[in-house]
Amino acid sequence: MGRIHSDLMEGFLFTDQYQLSMAQLYWKQGVSDTTAQFDYFFRRYPDYGEHQAGYAITAGLGWLVEWLSATRVTKTEIDILRGQKNPLGEPRFDEGFLTWLAENGDFGALTLRAVEEGRVVHAAAPIAIVEGPMALAQIVETSLLNHLNYQTLIATKASRIVEQARGGKVLEFGMRRGPDIGTNAGTRAALIGGADASSNAGVSHALGIDPQGTHAHSMVQLFMATGHGELGAFRAYAELYPDECLLLVDTIDTLGSGVPNAITVFEELRTNGHVPLGIRLDSGDLAHLAVRSARMLDDAGFGDVGIVLSSDLDELAMWQIREQIHQEAPEYGLDPSEIIGRLMYGVGTRLVTSHGHPALDGVYKLVAVRSGDGWKPAIKLSDTPEKMPIPGAKTLWRVYDRRGLATVDVVGSNDEGLVAGSPLTVHHPFRPSVSRTFAPDEIAEVESLHRTIYTDGEAQIEAEPLDVLRDRRAGDLARLDIGVRRLVNPHRYHVSVTPQVHELQTNLIDETQS
Amino acid sequence: MGRIHSDLMEGFLFTDQYQLSMAQLYWKQGVSDTTAQFDYFFRRYPDYGEHQAGYAITAGLGWLVEWLSATRVTKTEIDILRGQKNPLGEPRFDEGFLTWLAENGDFGALTLRAVEEGRVVHAAAPIAIVEGPMALAQIVETSLLNHLNYQTLIATKASRIVEQARGGKVLEFGMRRGPDIGTNAGTRAALIGGADASSNAGVSHALGIDPQGTHAHSMVQLFMATGHGELGAFRAYAELYPDECLLLVDTIDTLGSGVPNAITVFEELRTNGHVPLGIRLDSGDLAHLAVRSARMLDDAGFGDVGIVLSSDLDELAMWQIREQIHQEAPEYGLDPSEIIGRLMYGVGTRLVTSHGHPALDGVYKLVAVRSGDGWKPAIKLSDTPEKMPIPGAKTLWRVYDRRGLATVDVVGSNDEGLVAGSPLTVHHPFRPSVSRTFAPDEIAEVESLHRTIYTDGEAQIEAEPLDVLRDRRAGDLARLDIGVRRLVNPHRYHVSVTPQVHELQTNLIDETQS
Repeated sequence: MGRIHSDLMEGFLFTDQYQLSMAQLYWKQGVSDTTAQFDYFFRRYPDYGEHQAGYAITAGLGWLVEWLSATRVTKTEIDILRGQKNPLGEPRFDEGFLTWLAENGDFGALTLRAVEEGRVVHAAAPIAIVEGPMALAQIVETSLLNHLNYQTLIATKASRIVEQARGGKVLEFGMRRGPDIGTNAGTRAALIGGADASSNAGVSHALGIDPQGTHAHSMVQLFMATGHGELGAFRAYAELYPDECLLLVDTIDTLGSGVPNAITVFEELRTNGHVPLGIRLDSGDLAHLAVRSARMLDDAGFGDVGIVLSSDLDELAMWQIREQIHQEAPEYGLDPSEIIGRLMYGVGTRLVTSHGHPALDGVYKLVAVRSGDGWKPAIKLSDTPEKMPIPGAKTLWRVYDRRGLATVDVVGSNDEGLVAGSPLTVHHPFRPSVSRTFAPDEIAEVESLHRTIYTDGEAQIEAEPLDVLRDRRAGDLARLDIGVRRLVNPHRYHVSVTPQVHELQTNLIDETQS
Repeated sequence: MGRIHSDLMEGFLFTDQYQLSMAQLYWKQGVSDTTAQFDYFFRRYPDYGEHQAGYAITAGLGWLVEWLSATRVTKTEIDILRGQKNPLGEPRFDEGFLTWLAENGDFGALTLRAVEEGRVVHAAAPIAIVEGPMALAQIVETSLLNHLNYQTLIATKASRIVEQARGGKVLEFGMRRGPDIGTNAGTRAALIGGADASSNAGVSHALGIDPQGTHAHSMVQLFMATGHGELGAFRAYAELYPDECLLLVDTIDTLGSGVPNAITVFEELRTNGHVPLGIRLDSGDLAHLAVRSARMLDDAGFGDVGIVLSSDLDELAMWQIREQIHQEAPEYGLDPSEIIGRLMYGVGTRLVTSHGHPALDGVYKLVAVRSGDGWKPAIKLSDTPEKMPIPGAKTLWRVYDRRGLATVDVVGSNDEGLVAGSPLTVHHPFRPSVSRTFAPDEIAEVESLHRTIYTDGEAQIEAEPLDVLRDRRAGDLARLDIGVRRLVNPHRYHVSVTPQVHELQTNLIDETQS
């Protein structure tokens, strides 16, 4: 119950019209079944204005694969396409093409290799590679970009927010201002990116975790309107939820009414053998109110209850709140670290919309076309070298140094090998004169980053539990240079190409321009 | 086919967990069926940084109503809630409440009155009003906000973009970087906001319009990789789509290769009796390239073919492109207005993410609780007067002056009337000392803005065709002061309250603070 519109809008026609026009053209040219390779990558890390990302966290692959597996063209969609007319009123699609599409209109012939969800990834490196019949690899472009761009964007934002929480719990609260039903993907991505829980009841249950929340201002307003006041509201809440009592204290006056009333109720809970969870601050100067509330709670013997902050939080605001607490806590005789240690963060709008950078610039580019036993590389020129996709069929490795830290991601041709223990020369992907050589003992480990995710119409990996994805992110972050993780102006992680890819790039640009 | 996850994540549990906790609390307190009124409104117009909105366009109501009608709690969801445990491992929800929810868990008891989709609306004025049992009016909050906030945000952005197109066609191209499946709502909202068409195949068909598109870079790349070059690609496209031939000219070199090749193909089309549609510029200095391309097309006798611009466009970029064409066209012996008159705009990421302002701050606040035959007003205090909802059960009028222009939106109590021909005194909603009086002859028309959209479990209005919504927007814009529609720093439209509401506000604040 409750699903609307979905059949037509979320199935095979969840694509840009021109993908269908292209598919027909390929069919007409006899190349619809020619094997092609497309790379998915992003060009620039999110730049939020005052602060910037130095890495991204992949997400979206799981739902993309479900979509690929579940979606095929139906008679309804064929009929819709049959009804499309050109400006002269003639059918836009040929019956021959529609017959081909009715028979071939699913994604079972595509193979998807990709970096798994939850991993740290970098600009310019291919995160996903689609190989298969030209026409279907073209049609899938829109859905692939849609699924991967948004979730990767949000997982990246979440990861940054979680880093700034310094161990404090992060709760995703974005539904009410999220992008329609797409907010569900935002919740999933936020959890992959490290958020501890979400208020989103449906998605939390679908992912097997307990949804979280406090209470609403409207509850307090209701008690006020009916003459029972804020204290009455708090008591009613504590009576019903004595063992998860978290009170929203800003409906009237946080320090003058909310916190004192919360303390009264906490004392009653304590008398009855319950442990209150804490208070939530949702407006005003959150840092100042956290310090003042902590002082009041401490004085009442509630030094261990939590303080949830919410209201337009993001990684920058969280950093500034911590800074202010460091300055202000001593004035109230408190240890700033103890206050920060009891904070939790409800992060909504700014997480689910990736405030400051609302779209990942991920693209999907044709890089090679099958020709006999080999591949012909494809190129798109641009005045901006960074906008030229790296041509050719390829693969991706991550190289770790002797400290165990990731030091470079290397893009190679798909017929190359890369192993630890050999010397390695790599080239800058866009600046021909820049190269770098590693001695064998500088390389401790080489990891191949792509896995076959989908082929022969079926997912090749089990649907992964959230914990696995979250652990993967934590593991990758632990192996990432702290400078790359910096909030502002992060150190630039290196993505390079092998000499073989470098030579292919150079030759192909020369040929095309001559 | 192709729908995933939807049952659990898009139905009754498409809500914040705390709405369910609140519902149980209201049930426990015996007030779950007490009639309440909640208002939906936004506090601030979108502020995109360098430019700001002076009005918004409502959208989302149609899909919200479909969701309300289709959604009710199922046994699966009751079982899920039954499985939720508190920190002690005890059931979070009482069996009595679950029984109540199983019997009452739909939205049929709610009445929704609202400003219709496609209309101009303003900050602080109630756009939608929900009246019904407290518990269900609470649970619906999340979905209502989710549906209305995002589509209103995007319709508003689209309207601004369309205004800057100065009559040129606007095509929505946002799917690939849109927010997962939420991009479909973005497409719908963009069309309501005035976009002429969309590349989104599924949504276009669902809304009964023809999806639009050109061709892909990958098509040109494929022909290049297989030795047929850009000209070969253009010819293949023109052969297949001779009567809707729009060529993407920037794969290699726009002026050196793309436009000359396009002209060659256009000449061949002309010889064969076809009329080419135009070219598309997707990178580089779009204004400069538009002028240079127009010159080349004119010289070849194609003065009437269109020029589609795309690549990170928004209302600000479009304004700047027009400015640059005004300056640069004369250097090439061209009339700037003629160039601007042939432009079309493909607008993607920046439309569907509302670049610069990614979330509307719409809120849903308890304003009154039924008590006998009347209403008890509810209030939430704040240090910021703008953050205090206007209390009480209410309604909304728009007042037009003798020029036929909207001059003020007036929030009144739901037992008040407002008619043209009487003197009218209104008060600023947040600054008690500011009031304004209209003489009877200053008011030409008073329009009641709310319609009953949903009641007794059924939509009270027919599903409205897109054309109706688009005409509604155009009609409202024509009656809006040009200064309010300005791109940058728009004139502030007045939203006021009646003396009766003003008195209620004042008394209630005094009572609560005393």
